[in-house]
Amino acid sequence: MHTHPFDWLDEQAEARRRAGLLRTLTPRPAASPLLDLAGNDYLGLTRHPAVARAAADAALRWGAGSTGSRLVTGTTELHAELESELADFCGFEAALVLASGYAANLAAVTALTARPGTLVVSDAYNHASLIDGCRLSRARTAVVPHRDPRAAAGEFAAHGGPAVAVTDSVFSVDGDAADLPALARVCRAAGAGLLVDDAHGLGVLGEGGRGAAAAAGLAGDADVVVTATLSKSLGSQGGVVLGPARVIRHLVNTARTFIFDTALAPAAAGGALAALRLARAEPQRAARVREVARETARMLAGEGLQVCEPDAAVVSVRAPSPEAAVRWAADCRAAGLAVGCFRPPSVPDGVSRVRLTARADLTDAQLRTVVGTVAATAPRAR
Amino acid sequence: MHTHPFDWLDEQAEARRRAGLLRTLTPRPAASPLLDLAGNDYLGLTRHPAVARAAADAALRWGAGSTGSRLVTGTTELHAELESELADFCGFEAALVLASGYAANLAAVTALTARPGTLVVSDAYNHASLIDGCRLSRARTAVVPHRDPRAAAGEFAAHGGPAVAVTDSVFSVDGDAADLPALARVCRAAGAGLLVDDAHGLGVLGEGGRGAAAAAGLAGDADVVVTATLSKSLGSQGGVVLGPARVIRHLVNTARTFIFDTALAPAAAGGALAALRLARAEPQRAARVREVARETARMLAGEGLQVCEPDAAVVSVRAPSPEAAVRWAADCRAAGLAVGCFRPPSVPDGVSRVRLTARADLTDAQLRTVVGTVAATAPRAR
Ligand SMILES: Cc1ncc(COP(=O)(O)O)c(C=O)c1O
Ligand SMILES: Cc1ncc(COP(=O)(O)O)c(C=O)c1O
Repeated sequence: MHTHPFDWLDEQAEARRRAGLLRTLTPRPAASPLLDLAGNDYLGLTRHPAVARAAADAALRWGAGSTGSRLVTGTTELHAELESELADFCGFEAALVLASGYAANLAAVTALTARPGTLVVSDAYNHASLIDGCRLSRARTAVVPHRDPRAAAGEFAAHGGPAVAVTDSVFSVDGDAADLPALARVCRAAGAGLLVDDAHGLGVLGEGGRGAAAAAGLAGDADVVVTATLSKSLGSQGGVVLGPARVIRHLVNTARTFIFDTALAPAAAGGALAALRLARAEPQRAARVREVARETARMLAGEGLQVCEPDAAVVSVRAPSPEAAVRWAADCRAAGLAVGCFRPPSVPDGVSRVRLTARADLTDAQLRTVVGTVAATAPRAR
Repeated sequence: MHTHPFDWLDEQAEARRRAGLLRTLTPRPAASPLLDLAGNDYLGLTRHPAVARAAADAALRWGAGSTGSRLVTGTTELHAELESELADFCGFEAALVLASGYAANLAAVTALTARPGTLVVSDAYNHASLIDGCRLSRARTAVVPHRDPRAAAGEFAAHGGPAVAVTDSVFSVDGDAADLPALARVCRAAGAGLLVDDAHGLGVLGEGGRGAAAAAGLAGDADVVVTATLSKSLGSQGGVVLGPARVIRHLVNTARTFIFDTALAPAAAGGALAALRLARAEPQRAARVREVARETARMLAGEGLQVCEPDAAVVSVRAPSPEAAVRWAADCRAAGLAVGCFRPPSVPDGVSRVRLTARADLTDAQLRTVVGTVAATAPRAR
C-alpha cells in the first residue's frame, strides 16, 4: 500500500510548529486602526487620493485586466507611457514593465546570463527573486560574501569569461546598501555587466528618489541594468527592468516571465504612473523618508536597542530569538503598531529581527510613538 | 581589452531578425477598433461594468497597492473573501491567491516536490511557468510525451518513490485538453499527487465554468491540487492555488513566490471577485464560450483550414511557416480582427499557428465575420 501523497506535509508542519516558525495569514480591514511600519509604502502614496483615483480610472477606462501577454493583446498605451516615464525619471534609455518585481528579476537574471559560459556573481544576502533567477539561468553562480566587491573581483578573475554581478541596492533584511560605485568598478575592470535590484531604492535614494543607480552616478550607463518593483515606493503592483534599449529588446524577445505572463493590470499601471508623477513633483518625499528612517534608528539606538544604521527606509532591530521576535511584534501590534517580524528561513544569517519601514508621511509625533512602543515592548524590558 | 558586456545581444538580435522571429510591442488604445480574438478574456468580463467598477472601488477603498507580502501587511479581508469564494466555486477545501498565475505555478510545483527523492512527471507541452517550477524545484523531472498517462505510469513505476504529475488542463497552443480522469487513475495507482494548471479551464470547463477538475470529478479530492490564473476568464490579474487545507498551509509556510512577493493589488482582487460572482450567477457564459469555440473551429475547418478540435476556448489553426503566420495575423489585423500568432520558441513542436480565442460575448454575426476574415487571409488563399 502507498501512503497518501501529501501525508509528509503534516510532519513538516509539526516540525515548524515545534520550532516556533509557523506562519499564518491575518487579514486586515480597510480601515485598520494600526499605525503601519511594516509595509513598503515608503512615500505614503498607495492611498494618496490621486494614486487611488488613477488606479480606479485606469480600471474603468481599460478594464480590470490586460487580457493577455504583452506580446499578444496585453500592451496598452498606458503601459508604454509608464515605461517611458520610468526610464526618463530613473535616467535609463529604456524600460520594460512586468507583472511583478519578482517576475522582473527572473527575467533580467535569466536574460543577461543567457550567453553560454556566463558566470553570475551574486551577493549572499540577495533577495529570493534574484536567487531564483540564478537558479533558473543556466549560468554557473558564484555566491560571494555580503557587500564584498573584492570577492566579486576574485570570482571574475578566476572565471575569465563573460560575467554579470547581481546585487540588491538596499538589502531588505537589515536595510544596508550595496557599495555600487565599488562594485561597478570591479565589473568594468573585468568587462562584466552589473544588474542592480533597486526595489528598496527607487523613490528613496538619489536626487528626488531617482534610485540607487542615480545616486551612484551609474544611471543610464551602457553596462548597467536595474530592476525595481512598482509595489513599494510607487504604491502599486508590478515590476520594471531599466537599461540600454538593446537589453530591453532582448528581454522582449527571450524572457519567459515576460513572454508567457499576462501583462500588468491597467489599474496597477495607472496607479504606479500617478505615484511616479507625485514622487517627481514632490522630491521632498524622498528626503523625508530617509530622515524618518535615520531618526527612528537613532532614537531606537538611544533606547539601547541593536539597530542597523539605515541606508534607505528599512530599519532593522535584532531580536534574541524567533519566539522573542514574534512576541515583540505581537506586543507592538497590541499597542497599535504594526512592525515586520523576520525570522528563519527569511533571514540569511539566521538572526531574527523586528523590522520597521519608514514612511514619508509619518509625523514627528508618530515617530516618537513608534519608538516609545518598540522600546517599551522590547524583550530585554520584560 | 574586454569586449562590452552586452555586445553579444546584437548578434542574437540579428539572428532573430534573419529568422523572421523578431518580436516587438504594439500598444493598443483604450478604444481599439479591432475585434479581439487574441486575448484570454474568455467570458467577456474584463470590461464588464460590474467588474471594472469593482476593481475601481477596491482601489479607492484599499489603495492602489497591497503594501507588502501577504505574510506582513499584504493580506486584506478582500483577499480572504476572494479565496473563500474561489475555493467554494471550484469545490476545494482551501485557496491561496498569489500575484500571478506564473507565481502560483512556481509556488505549487516547488512546494509539492520539496520532499527529498520526489519525481515530477511533466507533460512535454506544459506551460512555461510549470516548466520553470520544475527547474526551480530540486526534484528530478521526467518529461513525458504530450497527453500520455501511460508514459506517466511508466515513470512512476521506474522511480518507485514519491512522485507528482504536473499538467495543463487545457494546453495553450492547440487548445486540447489533458485526459485528467486517466491521469488521476495512474497517479492513484502509484500513490502520486496530481497538480493541474487550470488557467484555460477555469470559467470555461465543468458545470458553470467550475473548471477542469470539477469536469473530471476530481474537485476537492485529497490528492489533487489545482492552480489557475485570475487574468483569463476572471478578467483581472493574479493566480490561485486550490487544494486541501494542509497543502495551502504548506505553501503559506514555504513557497518563495508567495512569501517573498508583494500581495496582489486590491483592484485585481476586487475585479476577480466580481467576475467570479458573475460567472457563478450566469452559468450560460461558460456554455456560450464553448459553443463559440466549437462553431469557430467547425466553420474554419469547413473553409479547408487545419484546425484542432477545441476542448475549451482556444482555437488553433496551423500556418505553413513563422513568416506566413506573422503575415496572416497582420492581414487579419488590417481587416479589423486581432488574432494571436504563435511561433518558435513559443510552440513546443516548432509549428507556427494563428490562434483564436473564443469569447462568451461574441454574437453569431461576429463569429461569421471572424471566420470570413481568417479564411480570406489564409496563406493558401493568396
Ligand atoms: C529586494 C526585492 N526585490 C524584489 C522584490 C519583489 O518585488 P514584487 O513584490 O513586486 O514582486 C522584493 C519585494 O517584494 C524585494 O524586497
Ligand atoms: C497555461 C497557463 N498557465 C499559467 C499562465 C500564467 O498565468 P498569469 O499570466 O496569470 O501569470 C498562463 C498564461 O499566462 C497560461 O496560459
